Amino acid sequence: MAAVRKRILLVGAGGVIGRAVHDALRASHEVVTAGLADADHVLDLADPAALAAMLERVGELDAVISTAGRANFRGLAAIEPAALDDSVYGLGLRDKLMGQVNLALAARRVLRDGGSITLTSGTTSDEPILGGSSLSMVNGALEHWAQAAATELPRGIRLNVVSPSLVEGTPAPAIAAFPGFEVVSGQRVALAYLRCVESGITGRILRV
Amino acid sequence: MAAVRKRILLVGAGGVIGRAVHDALRASHEVVTAGLADADHVLDLADPAALAAMLERVGELDAVISTAGRANFRGLAAIEPAALDDSVYGLGLRDKLMGQVNLALAARRVLRDGGSITLTSGTTSDEPILGGSSLSMVNGALEHWAQAAATELPRGIRLNVVSPSLVEGTPAPAIAAFPGFEVVSGQRVALAYLRCVESGITGRILRV
Repeated sequence: MAAVRKRILLVGAGGVIGRAVHDALRASHEVVTAGLADADHVLDLADPAALAAMLERVGELDAVISTAGRANFRGLAAIEPAALDDSVYGLGLRDKLMGQVNLALAARRVLRDGGSITLTSGTTSDEPILGGSSLSMVNGALEHWAQAAATELPRGIRLNVVSPSLVEGTPAPAIAAFPGFEVVSGQRVALAYLRCVESGITGRILRV
Repeated sequence: MAAVRKRILLVGAGGVIGRAVHDALRASHEVVTAGLADADHVLDLADPAALAAMLERVGELDAVISTAGRANFRGLAAIEPAALDDSVYGLGLRDKLMGQVNLALAARRVLRDGGSITLTSGTTSDEPILGGSSLSMVNGALEHWAQAAATELPRGIRLNVVSPSLVEGTPAPAIAAFPGFEVVSGQRVALAYLRCVESGITGRILRV
């Protein structure tokens, strides 16, 4: 059967993964974009008030997708103990983790029954890279949070996480930090997001 | 062969798990205790300056164990989007996660070559309970961080995490929040910590 046309908010639409997801979804769905620049709605995901105001403007949705989130990259030898606000780990916890968690929590209010939330972690949750301890922390936190939160969402709202490996189009310095990791095509990664939106799965981590 | 007597710092010694670990280790090792009360050194793990001062006083160690860390328990329906400082998730990220991460980072300076760091997560990383999304987040973050950080520690220093199920002696209201979870004895959980200290393993999550 043909997929029903859905209204989808894509946060992080300007990134490498976001552009691939946009390309995969726009043929069959209405996609509203948000991001730090070049989007229907300019948004800093780490700002909960800006997030609430944007969702108010966007209105009812069938799905929310995030391919957004920042974290620091630094070797452990250069990381000292520090309170969260001063820590190398603070950016990832505030931005990639709590930004996406807050997006999911806020999406509860604007998603139709059975709506879909899809967030983005990354392969470093399971496969560490040197200098990537903040990425591993944040991606692990997001995946385990989502598995738990999915069991408590109302009205059949679903919550899944896509954990991509390196995606084609990632800048060369970032690729160099992932020696021995497979580079997957944007089209292949986008399939996982499409599957989350158009299936009935929830509480799943899709590793691509 | 008999275990070599080691000098071990146990943070969280006053808790249910901490007492069981203390009982298991004190026969064969010198155990220095730290905790919010009733310990050789009174310590709030969420305060990096207090942590540094305490380690300075304690001196050289063969092992550091943490059985400490707090996080909020609340149903997802009662959790609203909020900046990290105002969020239900803030306590767990600042205390159980960053407190233990900072302990591990600081321990690098005082541990002898081949020393052991053992932190504590919990079964909710993999097995969600209703109201436990903050626990799942923090335990997941800690486990994946440790797997990554273990690959970057100097001088053969090892880093492992014990993920206990419910432990005998946990207060009844907390046990009631874990329907269908096995209650394990303190002695059995303590074995996992002993194994981390006296073996050569690193980057492992020991589920009990």
